[in-house]
Amino acid sequence: MLVGSIEAGGTKFVCAVGDEDYRIKDSVHFPTTTPEETLRKTIDYFKKFDVEAIGIASFGPIELRKNSPKYGYITKTPKPNWENTDFVGTLKKELNVPMFWTTDVNGSAYGEYVMSTLSNEKIESLVYYTIGTGVGGGAIKNGEFVGTVGHPEMGHTLLKRHPDDLDFKGICPFHGDCLEGLVAGPTFDARLGKPGKDVPQSDHVWDIMAYYVAQAALQVTLILRPDKVVFGGGVVSEPFLDKVRAQFKELLNGYVEVGDLKKYITMPLVKDNGSATLGDFALAIRELQE
Amino acid sequence: MLVGSIEAGGTKFVCAVGDEDYRIKDSVHFPTTTPEETLRKTIDYFKKFDVEAIGIASFGPIELRKNSPKYGYITKTPKPNWENTDFVGTLKKELNVPMFWTTDVNGSAYGEYVMSTLSNEKIESLVYYTIGTGVGGGAIKNGEFVGTVGHPEMGHTLLKRHPDDLDFKGICPFHGDCLEGLVAGPTFDARLGKPGKDVPQSDHVWDIMAYYVAQAALQVTLILRPDKVVFGGGVVSEPFLDKVRAQFKELLNGYVEVGDLKKYITMPLVKDNGSATLGDFALAIRELQE
Repeated sequence: MLVGSIEAGGTKFVCAVGDEDYRIKDSVHFPTTTPEETLRKTIDYFKKFDVEAIGIASFGPIELRKNSPKYGYITKTPKPNWENTDFVGTLKKELNVPMFWTTDVNGSAYGEYVMSTLSNEKIESLVYYTIGTGVGGGAIKNGEFVGTVGHPEMGHTLLKRHPDDLDFKGICPFHGDCLEGLVAGPTFDARLGKPGKDVPQSDHVWDIMAYYVAQAALQVTLILRPDKVVFGGGVVSEPFLDKVRAQFKELLNGYVEVGDLKKYITMPLVKDNGSATLGDFALAIRELQE
Repeated sequence: MLVGSIEAGGTKFVCAVGDEDYRIKDSVHFPTTTPEETLRKTIDYFKKFDVEAIGIASFGPIELRKNSPKYGYITKTPKPNWENTDFVGTLKKELNVPMFWTTDVNGSAYGEYVMSTLSNEKIESLVYYTIGTGVGGGAIKNGEFVGTVGHPEMGHTLLKRHPDDLDFKGICPFHGDCLEGLVAGPTFDARLGKPGKDVPQSDHVWDIMAYYVAQAALQVTLILRPDKVVFGGGVVSEPFLDKVRAQFKELLNGYVEVGDLKKYITMPLVKDNGSATLGDFALAIRELQE
């Protein structure tokens, strides 16, 4: 059996074909240009394979309530040309297979959930955050995504400001100094005039970042009580997560038990940013079974 | 059919007996003293009735994972004498009926969920916050409580501080200026030297409070995307919630849709602090059916 994965990012699309054991058989990626051109390339790619279902993890915001007339749409994204794009409908016209439609971070969260189960971790729930060009999060409990009237937008909560960072206004066009506005990749340029890859972990700005990311982990810990919190995305590294764990421990102050912090706050189990592709394969198979 | 409700608060216990339509047939309340005395009174009360099951909504923290040897215990509460109390086990020795064990705020959340359904609201999920002596929150999706490794402790997340409140250290013994440390009832005494009931809504401190409570609503909106957020507890009133709604609207800045704010951020549907009793009755009946 073959299934498909579409990881639809704001910068690039990654399309892949895999089997029932989630093994990648073929993949391709291309830049995200106009919806017409990008979805055309996507359709043409999948026409070459005999996939039985496709899992789609898309940038957003998206409409995922099945009873909405806009189900399957990218809705009011700030990305030029993509607002109000009928993503699933466009694909369905030419690729007549079941499709599971969700957000990019939900796709990654599901991939991590599946991989945790395959790795014999006894978990029922997890939260997945990505910290890259933007910040987003998805949550799963017992195989179901959290979120009723829409998908989570965990990247936009407000935080207690770090005392050494009070003058920084944040870069979120909607909220200024929300989580995304304080820790997304482009904040390095905004704070220091150079990209994050050129800022050593010894720079104090990483402590400030860790203070905010620890608060994000604290929020989902106290609101969701998940089995673990996974952080992916270009800003995240193991040395950075060590700083996050230390700040989280101090902020939580033993109030609830989360077990071994190394296992609780972690990098993705799936390597090379592959969580979403694995999650998409699994969601495609699930869509077939329902 | 008769079922029982125990609303176990840190200050008082409310025990009630109701029927299958959640009508209260009898109730009693007494102060929370020692575990021995208080649970003795509870057992003696229910021995007078032929209840088929009991729903228990308790102050905490509590252990609610059924596979834990401490299931049914109040665990490490700061309340004197109650740490490590085998609440359910003590009752089970003398009252041999099924019991549903959860937190006080989960009980209230469930009561509001049931009442919303009875009122023909089409909701699948909600969050219930209480703001009184302390601050806590519970969340429900499709009839199930949110929380895997334990129950939520939503009252202890950190917040962006209000510019006019930066000198206030907060009163939470664990976290200082977490949500509870900034908006629980006793903060009025700490900030102004008088109780909240003596502070008119025109006082600026209510704007500061609303700024923080709006952030709590924002957190659960962006993390859980519930159908509505209910606020109960002694600090909450309709005029106060109007301030909260105004601040919430400004902070969210249209980022996600939540519908009519009057319906989204609301007082409890069940009057006179009755949400937990109704929730307990419904949970007792559910326990019988499982």
